[in-house]
Amino acid sequence: MTCFITDTFLLQTESAQKLYFDHAQNQPIIDYHCHLSPKEIAEDRQFENMTQIWLGGDHYKWRALRAAGVKEKYITGDASDWEKFEKWASICPLTIRNPLFHWTMLELNRPFGVNDRFLNSSTAKSIWDECNAMLKDPSFSARGIMRQMNVKLVCTTDDPADSLEYHQLLAKDYLSGKFPIRVLPTFRADRIFPRACSTPEGVVSYLHYLAKLSAAADVDINSFAALRSAIARRHSFFHSIGSRLSDCGFELFHWTEPCSINLLEKSFGNLLAGSTISEEDIIALSSVLLTDLGRLNAEKNWVSQLHIGAMRDNSTRLYRQIGPDAGCDSIVDGCYGKALSRYFDSLDRIGRLPKTIVYNLNPDANYLLASLIANFNDGSAPGKMQYGAGWWFLDQKHGIEDQLETLSNMGLLSLFVGMLTDSRSFLSYTRHEYFRRILCNLLGSEMESGLVPNDFNWIGGIVEDVCYKNAIRYFQF
Amino acid sequence: MTCFITDTFLLQTESAQKLYFDHAQNQPIIDYHCHLSPKEIAEDRQFENMTQIWLGGDHYKWRALRAAGVKEKYITGDASDWEKFEKWASICPLTIRNPLFHWTMLELNRPFGVNDRFLNSSTAKSIWDECNAMLKDPSFSARGIMRQMNVKLVCTTDDPADSLEYHQLLAKDYLSGKFPIRVLPTFRADRIFPRACSTPEGVVSYLHYLAKLSAAADVDINSFAALRSAIARRHSFFHSIGSRLSDCGFELFHWTEPCSINLLEKSFGNLLAGSTISEEDIIALSSVLLTDLGRLNAEKNWVSQLHIGAMRDNSTRLYRQIGPDAGCDSIVDGCYGKALSRYFDSLDRIGRLPKTIVYNLNPDANYLLASLIANFNDGSAPGKMQYGAGWWFLDQKHGIEDQLETLSNMGLLSLFVGMLTDSRSFLSYTRHEYFRRILCNLLGSEMESGLVPNDFNWIGGIVEDVCYKNAIRYFQF
Amino acid sequence: MTCFITDTFLLQTESAQKLYFDHAQNQPIIDYHCHLSPKEIAEDRQFENMTQIWLGGDHYKWRALRAAGVKEKYITGDASDWEKFEKWASICPLTIRNPLFHWTMLELNRPFGVNDRFLNSSTAKSIWDECNAMLKDPSFSARGIMRQMNVKLVCTTDDPADSLEYHQLLAKDYLSGKFPIRVLPTFRADRIFPRACSTPEGVVSYLHYLAKLSAAADVDINSFAALRSAIARRHSFFHSIGSRLSDCGFELFHWTEPCSINLLEKSFGNLLAGSTISEEDIIALSSVLLTDLGRLNAEKNWVSQLHIGAMRDNSTRLYRQIGPDAGCDSIVDGCYGKALSRYFDSLDRIGRLPKTIVYNLNPDANYLLASLIANFNDGSAPGKMQYGAGWWFLDQKHGIEDQLETLSNMGLLSLFVGMLTDSRSFLSYTRHEYFRRILCNLLGSEMESGLVPNDFNWIGGIVEDVCYKNAIRYFQF
Repeated sequence: MTCFITDTFLLQTESAQKLYFDHAQNQPIIDYHCHLSPKEIAEDRQFENMTQIWLGGDHYKWRALRAAGVKEKYITGDASDWEKFEKWASICPLTIRNPLFHWTMLELNRPFGVNDRFLNSSTAKSIWDECNAMLKDPSFSARGIMRQMNVKLVCTTDDPADSLEYHQLLAKDYLSGKFPIRVLPTFRADRIFPRACSTPEGVVSYLHYLAKLSAAADVDINSFAALRSAIARRHSFFHSIGSRLSDCGFELFHWTEPCSINLLEKSFGNLLAGSTISEEDIIALSSVLLTDLGRLNAEKNWVSQLHIGAMRDNSTRLYRQIGPDAGCDSIVDGCYGKALSRYFDSLDRIGRLPKTIVYNLNPDANYLLASLIANFNDGSAPGKMQYGAGWWFLDQKHGIEDQLETLSNMGLLSLFVGMLTDSRSFLSYTRHEYFRRILCNLLGSEMESGLVPNDFNWIGGIVEDVCYKNAIRYFQF
Repeated sequence: MTCFITDTFLLQTESAQKLYFDHAQNQPIIDYHCHLSPKEIAEDRQFENMTQIWLGGDHYKWRALRAAGVKEKYITGDASDWEKFEKWASICPLTIRNPLFHWTMLELNRPFGVNDRFLNSSTAKSIWDECNAMLKDPSFSARGIMRQMNVKLVCTTDDPADSLEYHQLLAKDYLSGKFPIRVLPTFRADRIFPRACSTPEGVVSYLHYLAKLSAAADVDINSFAALRSAIARRHSFFHSIGSRLSDCGFELFHWTEPCSINLLEKSFGNLLAGSTISEEDIIALSSVLLTDLGRLNAEKNWVSQLHIGAMRDNSTRLYRQIGPDAGCDSIVDGCYGKALSRYFDSLDRIGRLPKTIVYNLNPDANYLLASLIANFNDGSAPGKMQYGAGWWFLDQKHGIEDQLETLSNMGLLSLFVGMLTDSRSFLSYTRHEYFRRILCNLLGSEMESGLVPNDFNWIGGIVEDVCYKNAIRYFQF
Repeated sequence: MTCFITDTFLLQTESAQKLYFDHAQNQPIIDYHCHLSPKEIAEDRQFENMTQIWLGGDHYKWRALRAAGVKEKYITGDASDWEKFEKWASICPLTIRNPLFHWTMLELNRPFGVNDRFLNSSTAKSIWDECNAMLKDPSFSARGIMRQMNVKLVCTTDDPADSLEYHQLLAKDYLSGKFPIRVLPTFRADRIFPRACSTPEGVVSYLHYLAKLSAAADVDINSFAALRSAIARRHSFFHSIGSRLSDCGFELFHWTEPCSINLLEKSFGNLLAGSTISEEDIIALSSVLLTDLGRLNAEKNWVSQLHIGAMRDNSTRLYRQIGPDAGCDSIVDGCYGKALSRYFDSLDRIGRLPKTIVYNLNPDANYLLASLIANFNDGSAPGKMQYGAGWWFLDQKHGIEDQLETLSNMGLLSLFVGMLTDSRSFLSYTRHEYFRRILCNLLGSEMESGLVPNDFNWIGGIVEDVCYKNAIRYFQF
């Protein structure tokens, strides 16, 4: 059986192939949002085997394994690494039409060069042995793989209380020329919001976090004002280490016009005293912090990222057994268009709306969101309000095409900052290749059917911009 | 004018044709969800004419007739059967691109062999005469048609209070070899829930139903505990007659954590005394019954079916004139992701989550639902949580392709239990053919464009599994 | 660089081309919903330059300009007309895949005949000069363009308090044979509803409007009953001038069963006294007015139009600077299926449901709405309940195809009344061409792949009906 990851994979017209080969393939990678461990990059981790590097934290594969009827022992349990790999290989043929099928082939093809076999029970051993052997080579360390994949810059995801010690090491290696890839932190603000504080455990956990934040910022967080100042200090610190993006995740987006400082201080005081607070108070406090974050970003020319629409930890059993990111997260339904509009408007009114990328998990909201954010383009920067790339469950051919279609119809594809991996794995850089092939296929096919001009300079230029150049111009790292 | 229902209808590539002819066409039919009358099968009804068998209960056609400006007299009124058929024929050419157009051709083609004419005013009489003549033949009786269509097993939809007398007769005929097709009941639980009991008429109707259920279960339903026990007894009885599935329909899905037994008994007591109860109480009582049903199913290895998203009886006028299923039902909007997740989680936590199929009527919720159910695959059975086939308004080419696309991206198409008719008519078995052609067309086209491996054993095997074999393995009848 | 607006633009099969050339291209235009100024038609405005006629009120282009980073000065500000045109030309190449790209080419092609260049910085001057020269010709006046574009009838959008003086002039010119195009008013009822009356400014503005309406109707609006009677009088007046359609826009659709006349009068009395009223009261009053409007329409055989789903004036800054329709409107999320169903049912029950067209801005609701309205077809008129053409953000290739797909699956495409411009510009008539090409492309491609019969009489007849003839039959102007 021959493999079908050929040079022309996904490129169904000659124009698509020309666009890809001449304009996309060789663009470097700016991976402006991912969940790689800065420690593993700083220490240049060498992975022991394919299970460690490929299955270890991959909740997409875990879901497929469970769906296929595989026991948890072979997924996140105490089976051996080989047993886990073998199980994954055995169900891989069942993943036809799921994105895992293409991803698997792409990831085995690059960097491992395995493209003459599909992964299945009978090829599992040979692929395990060959890839594990390569993993021992320095060119397959964390840094080695990043170099192989032509990565130029990576933004990790970091807590405001984080010391950024590894980023400081990485900056040193970058400046000294020892490691040519820039690795920058992102200010991932989720934990600053008192979201779960309607429950006693939520309050305990939040207070625990405030203590960490307090120490990191060297601010005694004894009031809401002090919390806001601690956050601003951490934002400055992140800026000094090169951070140029913030990020927040939301189940649904809530926001409300600010109430009086006294009321805010009162409910924050209750929190500090260990009491639970109402959902209304949580939203009031969080709204002020969101506005602060927007303002801080605008003032330092950062980019705000908002990830909206994930319902997390659906299975209490799996959450207790494995913790978060166990593969029991999914898409949420609900309305939030007005709240998001009011939030952007509140910043726009005071001239403090930062460049913003919104990522959406529920495809229902594609048109809503893409049309909503476009209300707030203000002429201050090309492509200021970005409708972000297909995220998580939507990071597949259909979802990517949908995002490109939505963005094209509601905004300007030409100014799109393009793809990101959003990944925990060093093997996910082929997501950029996947995206680029899909983009070129779409445009190439429309060139041939007369929907876009048959002009390779023009359309090829857009491809280069979306794959690489727009990101450079937009983020101004 | 020649007809276009040829062998290659919908099969737009050679690979699609090969998949269909070699792997799909000859698979038997497991119709695991339909609304056929067990009485008509048991008595082997011979239909008088095409209006009786084809238009009698078909609210899809009724809607098209009304949309075309035809008076109710010729739809559900007192016009003659021929007049009704003639009206339907006359508007049939207007149904181009509506699923009715393809369905009509498929149904005239099989079992009647009419494929040289489109149905319209000028062909109406000849088709009426020819088909009516065939309907007199034993091979066109209820059982005759089922044999012709290669049906192997059918699950009807039955009320928990039903005596299942016809199923017992059918079981006898099956075991004696007199009728080779298995006909099993499904535990359709809708009426056990006190849904409409916020209104006095709702309470009257519910108490009336409880009396029937009480008699059937031989349990004096004088408490909520007694109701639960009556339901469990009927569940056992259905099991003894071969039932292996339950089913419930929901406008939106509501579920809440159980409150105290005392409170439940108190509000049920109010019901028994003839009082209306609050929506909150209705949800509390219903949630407990839903959990019971899940538990009972899990314990007997049944499959739970949930049908979500229909807004019924929109036209009061038509409802009063014709009753339910009059063709004035449509899709509902609203959120229920969290409630459904909490329901599954509550069963998962106690190890009593049954195999489940969720059917969705609002295409908005496709990704939400398909991603949500996948949280609860637990490795206990391949394809445990199923995203069900395109239902009702979505049972058409576009809807079927959407369902396959959604399922493929959010789960494992390879383990899908496939199509069902959900029909009240003996002429609907060609829905399986329609589905199979669409499935093969999709996979064949992707084989030719390099999106799935060009391997007929592999992909043909998936086709066989989805058309027939997965259902056999999954339901374990 | 040659332009790609050729004769076969969008017509990707021979069948599509045949359908378009033989059945679509020469059909006249019935533009039954637009926002043209009756004054400009009556006075036969001659436009000074391309900025005046093409960019002046076009908030689609404004959004694109802002997204591209252009300052407001060059969009709605005090830059010269040439500077504004030049800015638009300069960013036009960035609009690839946005509907503006195709629209721009179509609008330059007809009526200006510019189809040998794309609009960009280097072609801007030549296109500006050539088109401005043409604009001086009488054949490029308001009426001239309408004649060139084969327009037969236009319905503008008019306030119930409007004097319709220009419509009366236009009727005179039409009847005298001076101007062969019929221009009729539409009863756009938005302002009769006390929507914003939960705020003091809303009340002031509403009372101001009531004074105008009072004068126009010659009714002293001193009670809710008087308001209802004033509205009925204006409806009659509009009817006498030839109006056959009403229209209302909704963010989300609200409706509630009528409460007592006393309560309605009481809350309306509060309004008249200058007080704000609750949202509940607003909905109660509005619901009665909506029912009145439905009844009036039914009694005069008018068509009700409902536009649902726009969230307006998102940017307070732009609203204050420019006013409404500034390009800061977008799509709203929210549920309203039940309210809309109850509204239709309330009219259906009393035999007063008018012919109705529903337009939807959120593609999420496509299937919901198209299935919902079909519940209320009653056999009184073919295609009575219409699922309207792709509106605003959905008036593009993808959105038009979606609407056709939804309508086809949920209803009868054959009876569709087709396209409208919904435009403020005399250059938008090519939207009809765009729609027709997309329709023919869809049907032609399905003829060739065997999904619809390969019969040009049949399918060509449907094309003619959808492009022109159905509208004639449906509206009965």
